[in-house]
Amino acid sequence: MSETPAVPLTIEGSSMLHQLFTFNWKAWRALSAAEQQRIAVAALAKIQAISGPEAKQQSVLYSLLGHKGDLMFIHLRDTFKDLNQVELFLAQTELHDFLTPTYSYLSVVELGLYESTAKTYSALAARDIVPHSPEWNAGIQETLARQATAMASRIYPTIPDAPYACFYPMDRKRGEEVNWYTETMADRQRMMHLHGMIGRRYAEDVRQIISGSIGLDDWEWGVDLFAQDPVTFKRLIYEMRFDEVSARYALFGSFYVGLRLPLENLPNWLTGSLG
Amino acid sequence: MSETPAVPLTIEGSSMLHQLFTFNWKAWRALSAAEQQRIAVAALAKIQAISGPEAKQQSVLYSLLGHKGDLMFIHLRDTFKDLNQVELFLAQTELHDFLTPTYSYLSVVELGLYESTAKTYSALAARDIVPHSPEWNAGIQETLARQATAMASRIYPTIPDAPYACFYPMDRKRGEEVNWYTETMADRQRMMHLHGMIGRRYAEDVRQIISGSIGLDDWEWGVDLFAQDPVTFKRLIYEMRFDEVSARYALFGSFYVGLRLPLENLPNWLTGSLG
Amino acid sequence: MSETPAVPLTIEGSSMLHQLFTFNWKAWRALSAAEQQRIAVAALAKIQAISGPEAKQQSVLYSLLGHKGDLMFIHLRDTFKDLNQVELFLAQTELHDFLTPTYSYLSVVELGLYESTAKTYSALAARDIVPHSPEWNAGIQETLARQATAMASRIYPTIPDAPYACFYPMDRKRGEEVNWYTETMADRQRMMHLHGMIGRRYAEDVRQIISGSIGLDDWEWGVDLFAQDPVTFKRLIYEMRFDEVSARYALFGSFYVGLRLPLENLPNWLTGSLG
Amino acid sequence: MSETPAVPLTIEGSSMLHQLFTFNWKAWRALSAAEQQRIAVAALAKIQAISGPEAKQQSVLYSLLGHKGDLMFIHLRDTFKDLNQVELFLAQTELHDFLTPTYSYLSVVELGLYESTAKTYSALAARDIVPHSPEWNAGIQETLARQATAMASRIYPTIPDAPYACFYPMDRKRGEEVNWYTETMADRQRMMHLHGMIGRRYAEDVRQIISGSIGLDDWEWGVDLFAQDPVTFKRLIYEMRFDEVSARYALFGSFYVGLRLPLENLPNWLTGSLG
Amino acid sequence: MSETPAVPLTIEGSSMLHQLFTFNWKAWRALSAAEQQRIAVAALAKIQAISGPEAKQQSVLYSLLGHKGDLMFIHLRDTFKDLNQVELFLAQTELHDFLTPTYSYLSVVELGLYESTAKTYSALAARDIVPHSPEWNAGIQETLARQATAMASRIYPTIPDAPYACFYPMDRKRGEEVNWYTETMADRQRMMHLHGMIGRRYAEDVRQIISGSIGLDDWEWGVDLFAQDPVTFKRLIYEMRFDEVSARYALFGSFYVGLRLPLENLPNWLTGSLG
Repeated sequence: MSETPAVPLTIEGSSMLHQLFTFNWKAWRALSAAEQQRIAVAALAKIQAISGPEAKQQSVLYSLLGHKGDLMFIHLRDTFKDLNQVELFLAQTELHDFLTPTYSYLSVVELGLYESTAKTYSALAARDIVPHSPEWNAGIQETLARQATAMASRIYPTIPDAPYACFYPMDRKRGEEVNWYTETMADRQRMMHLHGMIGRRYAEDVRQIISGSIGLDDWEWGVDLFAQDPVTFKRLIYEMRFDEVSARYALFGSFYVGLRLPLENLPNWLTGSLG
Repeated sequence: MSETPAVPLTIEGSSMLHQLFTFNWKAWRALSAAEQQRIAVAALAKIQAISGPEAKQQSVLYSLLGHKGDLMFIHLRDTFKDLNQVELFLAQTELHDFLTPTYSYLSVVELGLYESTAKTYSALAARDIVPHSPEWNAGIQETLARQATAMASRIYPTIPDAPYACFYPMDRKRGEEVNWYTETMADRQRMMHLHGMIGRRYAEDVRQIISGSIGLDDWEWGVDLFAQDPVTFKRLIYEMRFDEVSARYALFGSFYVGLRLPLENLPNWLTGSLG
Repeated sequence: MSETPAVPLTIEGSSMLHQLFTFNWKAWRALSAAEQQRIAVAALAKIQAISGPEAKQQSVLYSLLGHKGDLMFIHLRDTFKDLNQVELFLAQTELHDFLTPTYSYLSVVELGLYESTAKTYSALAARDIVPHSPEWNAGIQETLARQATAMASRIYPTIPDAPYACFYPMDRKRGEEVNWYTETMADRQRMMHLHGMIGRRYAEDVRQIISGSIGLDDWEWGVDLFAQDPVTFKRLIYEMRFDEVSARYALFGSFYVGLRLPLENLPNWLTGSLG
Repeated sequence: MSETPAVPLTIEGSSMLHQLFTFNWKAWRALSAAEQQRIAVAALAKIQAISGPEAKQQSVLYSLLGHKGDLMFIHLRDTFKDLNQVELFLAQTELHDFLTPTYSYLSVVELGLYESTAKTYSALAARDIVPHSPEWNAGIQETLARQATAMASRIYPTIPDAPYACFYPMDRKRGEEVNWYTETMADRQRMMHLHGMIGRRYAEDVRQIISGSIGLDDWEWGVDLFAQDPVTFKRLIYEMRFDEVSARYALFGSFYVGLRLPLENLPNWLTGSLG
Repeated sequence: MSETPAVPLTIEGSSMLHQLFTFNWKAWRALSAAEQQRIAVAALAKIQAISGPEAKQQSVLYSLLGHKGDLMFIHLRDTFKDLNQVELFLAQTELHDFLTPTYSYLSVVELGLYESTAKTYSALAARDIVPHSPEWNAGIQETLARQATAMASRIYPTIPDAPYACFYPMDRKRGEEVNWYTETMADRQRMMHLHGMIGRRYAEDVRQIISGSIGLDDWEWGVDLFAQDPVTFKRLIYEMRFDEVSARYALFGSFYVGLRLPLENLPNWLTGSLG
């Protein structure tokens, strides 16, 4: 157990919940316009009451394309308890009667620190500090605390205003021969670095939020991309598919694409218009 | 990062959405003939109002075979926002109350340029231009722009009038040993060329539209085939199954086959007749 | 491209649609006996009106075992359009209100001609005729036309009267190492021959109809077996499972087993009796 | 074709159908006690009328644990037609309105005769009798007839009275490298023998019925275990998981565990009590 | 058969059932506050009547995050019959009309005794005692009885009070090359030891209950984790993913995360508040 650990250091921030729903247009259109108006206004007021512009209080909405859902919420909060309370609040609105959940995703915004990990593990090893000893733990905590402070805006992000979002969950493969979790730290660090280089070339066009969900939901990570032009999602992910870490080790869940629906446009959307 | 990129150049055109529905005959037949007529006429008028013959404004309809759906729309539009608005418009028709979504597919019409890619990458390399440098990017953009102009009718296609359509999504395999994304560009180009040769022999009988959906939907590509005789779909795809790129690297989703339903025949179809 | 093609010659006949439904006994038993009688008689009349004893006009019915369905139709028609019209006609009967589709399968009766293929390809090669040249195409067409005539009763089959039927779809494996589509024509021909030898020993007890569905439905082939004793299905398929082509290359979908329900017995079945 | 066949001799007995249902407690509790009583008594009478203690007329009932079902019937009959008639009879009871099918399994009680097969094939080979010749067939039939008589009580079993049952379907693996169906008869016989030795050590605590379903349902075999203590199921199957035939070749479906519900206790169960 | 068995000794304790439900808020909010109050109080009384603080009589409740369920019960009882009776009792409450089962898991709390197994098997072998002989069985029983007594509090556990729980089922892989069940006892013991070492470092932050479900439910084990901070679930499981037994041999089902809902808070939760 005194060998260098294989797990990369990771810092966590906001708790995150994606909620996807289909909307029951048939039941909705059976209501009078006044009823629709009343329900829409009440729902909007409730969402506005429980969310805000602060990083850990955001609830933003997307109009989804295709049959996988009509509306998607992304909620960012301080704790899972806060997220659960948001779910319960939304469930008390009348609008919720017209929503059928089709998917959800529970995760925590995170930043994997491959570079820092390598440096920290090396530095501690150079001082002959045994992994998991109190001294080692203190060294690790110091790195984590320093990074959490430096990277606060990335682990407690504000959701970009971009008109399009793309969400998908993913795993690293643990096949019989190709297995991310048995690769050396150095190899993983190298591959993640090259992977990051591609992302950097797209940084102007695509912003991303990575959240970790090992032990929390059915895939290991959730990825949210935000862009002006949704074709950029395709170009970025296609290019990445050829880099080693994606080509050999990535497994993807479903992809969900939607248009940002500013909260105040919800009543309009409920009349069938993107405004 | 100065080695030649592995990703083939690709040009994109129309935004594309497939919508598949089952039709609730029981509820429909419970209506009076007058009610049916009113709803059918209104739906037809709405569809005609939001679509037209222009390449980026098409909404065409198919009567599907089997339990996977009764009706399929293929929508081509300029943007994903336009596609989402089409969904919302259709959801406001009374006819929509009788439709249950069973599947959908979001993609962008594309053309993969393996031949151009090889030439362009070679030419830039011969001039010692570093990949992803401004000069390199300019060279790539020039090729893309030139091809987009030359291929405009293929990336902004008109849906053929053929009586039968076949739609299916597909992936390229990323197995532990057999992995399309780790093959060399030269090998991929060679295999795609042979693949294209088969398609060319069927060109008179089968027309196709290829759309890309990496980062947009759950498979990497969508394929639409159009023919006079649906047995041609079987012959073409069976023959292709033996070529290297399909035999070793293709993974297929579900296959959906339908008969073109001219919009004006929709009211007739709703009485149970193909006319 | 001048090498001998890998695809075996195949001739196609009747268009085929399997429709599987569960029956809503609760709603049905809520009707009066007179209502039941009226609906049953009308449905029977409709099915009899749209089908007949001719090979390309058959619609036969099975009472299925288990939860995968209660009733299965096998329809054989001349074209997919005819099959789609049959679906639409059935959907207009009142009986259809009590049927929920659980599965369907779209295919074309076919005969793979491995022996003829080998002879024809060899003969054409011996005359130095280049594959896919006009002369080669003519030679192929001649073989196909001759076989289609000789095998007319097999590609436009009459559904056997046997009391039991078994339907299942299947694929040939395209694994990373074991891949039917990269085997040589000679090896495939040899394996199919041995496979056929087993079938021949069961020929008295089990009749079969093979239909192709590449490009038409989600598996590559559909198999229908017909027998006096359903245990024969098990014995035949178990024995075949050990032959090379099945042991190594076969992938199976679900198996559906039912009892032939003569159309005129449908009203009786609707009272809960197999008669 | 003159080499020794690879398929082991197998004898078949009773036709078997498992039916699993969830029970609609909400609708049931909406009835008056008198209504419940009437429906329960009628259902009980019907089940008793169509079943009995004879091996080929048994219909026994289990109260299932978990969400996969509330009630499970195991039916043993002489033919599949009899089983289908049982389904139709049950569907005519009012109790059936409260049952939603969640799973079913169609199979035939069987006994694989690996030991006899080896002896019979050897004896016939020693006499230079060609496989599948009339003389060979006669020799095989003689063995099968003799075994069917000797093993009659095992292929036409009585369902044990034990308080707990465990049902699961299973396959033998046909992987790209590990493939049961390409192993030699001698190796399969050896592995099945060791497998049987474990079962024998549990014979006092667990009784089993093996049924074959190749060509009949979606897995190759169904296994029913019966015990006083359900933890015995876990111990037996865990121990078996380490023997070669299970460790390398077994694929398992879902596991269903229930408590025997004597038919006469059904009315009591319908009030929410196990009695 | 005289070689040392491969199966590790295991002791079993409480019977365990997880029940997961979605809650029908629409139907619930349609009730008057008085009706809601009456139903909530009655349900609470029923749950309190059938459970208690004793290890084998616990029924605890969680408010789940995401669409996989709204409420999760963990029941611990003495027998499966007791668990089935609990299910039936809950099904008789009016509250149950608002619950739709989405998942369940049946298992038995267990402790795998790799260390004891090695010692016991060695000791018995050193005395030349043949495996499965009466003497051997007696030796094994002695070890099991001794451990069951010593470990009583772990196999009949009390569910920790921690505010967060995480439940997931898992398997050990039986791949074509990587197969847990064909590894030697010594290798498995070594890997399980290293695995346990990680758990031990998290012991202050995460408590766990391991239950076995081979032969009982669809995965081999169920894992319940309990913590103050749900991010600890992610850290622990991420770190474990790199140890050999998880990296190479673990297969995971879905992950379910919830907040402990003290029974007396249920009425409050039913008004949409976590309290």
